[in-house]
Amino acid sequence: MPRYYRYLGELIDAGTERISSSDLSRRMNVTASQIRQDLNNFGGFGQQGYGYNVKHLHEEIGKILGLNETHHIIIVGAGNLGQALANYVKFEKFGFMVIALFDVNPELKGKDVRGIKIHMLDELEGFVKRHRVDIATLTMPKSDADSIANHLVQLGIPAIWNFAHVDLELADESVVVENVHLSDSLMQLSYNIIERKKK
Amino acid sequence: MPRYYRYLGELIDAGTERISSSDLSRRMNVTASQIRQDLNNFGGFGQQGYGYNVKHLHEEIGKILGLNETHHIIIVGAGNLGQALANYVKFEKFGFMVIALFDVNPELKGKDVRGIKIHMLDELEGFVKRHRVDIATLTMPKSDADSIANHLVQLGIPAIWNFAHVDLELADESVVVENVHLSDSLMQLSYNIIERKKK
Repeated sequence: MPRYYRYLGELIDAGTERISSSDLSRRMNVTASQIRQDLNNFGGFGQQGYGYNVKHLHEEIGKILGLNETHHIIIVGAGNLGQALANYVKFEKFGFMVIALFDVNPELKGKDVRGIKIHMLDELEGFVKRHRVDIATLTMPKSDADSIANHLVQLGIPAIWNFAHVDLELADESVVVENVHLSDSLMQLSYNIIERKKK
Repeated sequence: MPRYYRYLGELIDAGTERISSSDLSRRMNVTASQIRQDLNNFGGFGQQGYGYNVKHLHEEIGKILGLNETHHIIIVGAGNLGQALANYVKFEKFGFMVIALFDVNPELKGKDVRGIKIHMLDELEGFVKRHRVDIATLTMPKSDADSIANHLVQLGIPAIWNFAHVDLELADESVVVENVHLSDSLMQLSYNIIERKKK
């Protein structure tokens, strides 16, 4: 779904108003029947022989992805990666607003990224009680990730975007977790380079 | 494979010398038969009824992943994300060395990240001719990603680690590409939050 949303956004930028499933399939490198199946699952936006209305489909998929709502994000770990993510203005376009960063490093106390304040980790509990937090982003070392993640879950945060280099072990399995394992991705790249050389 | 490598690394840190496929399967949340199949594909490191030698297996998988070699990386796009990646000392532990950053912003000219110099984009061609570059990391806006990626490929760079929010269209299909689409990941998280609420 995120990939459909991205491609449809590009079509809108290019001024395309309608697209057939076969044209979309060529662009996205999936079969046309796969596309029809995916989109029919979500209510069937297409009209037979007429193609999809790009703008309408983009909007509807946006709703399915929850992009019509604002998500409040905190970032735990205000090192380079945490600050880089806080600096990504682009996320705001999709309704993802970073409202605070947290760290244990006293040198960061009182500083901010683009006006978003860096708090000390011991202020986390109070902050979460006073603000709605939809997603916690973990960008701290893996050694602390499990304990902090479970603490966040206890505080009622429903979703975690995990950049720590570990698969989290959470006591509450209803929490939504999405992992971005950068080192794994780099190793996969390295592996594919070797495989490619064999050919 | 990267995931096996990561889990085995954690076992080494914890002082574990041997592990059975059933223990490993419980930790990694995959079936024991899947583990035996994966590892047999790579030469079968286990001995029946005796388990795997963790350190040996970790080393062998490291070799399969190419981690016994040094990879030279350049980063094209020295904004927040590019600089954050250049600052990741952890990648060096696995043999991934960032040797240069490139950007078009004249304010960044002559600056450096951890001693790694930021060059102007027009110096890219000369740099690649003088240095071995194994992987180019793309952290620039998506509007420039395709043209720069194809330029890098023409210069002979065999692999691309793509953070630009687009699926690259490369003229040369032998190039290895690994995507990290952060916005897609965040949208997937948002989608999963909504799906979870329905339950």
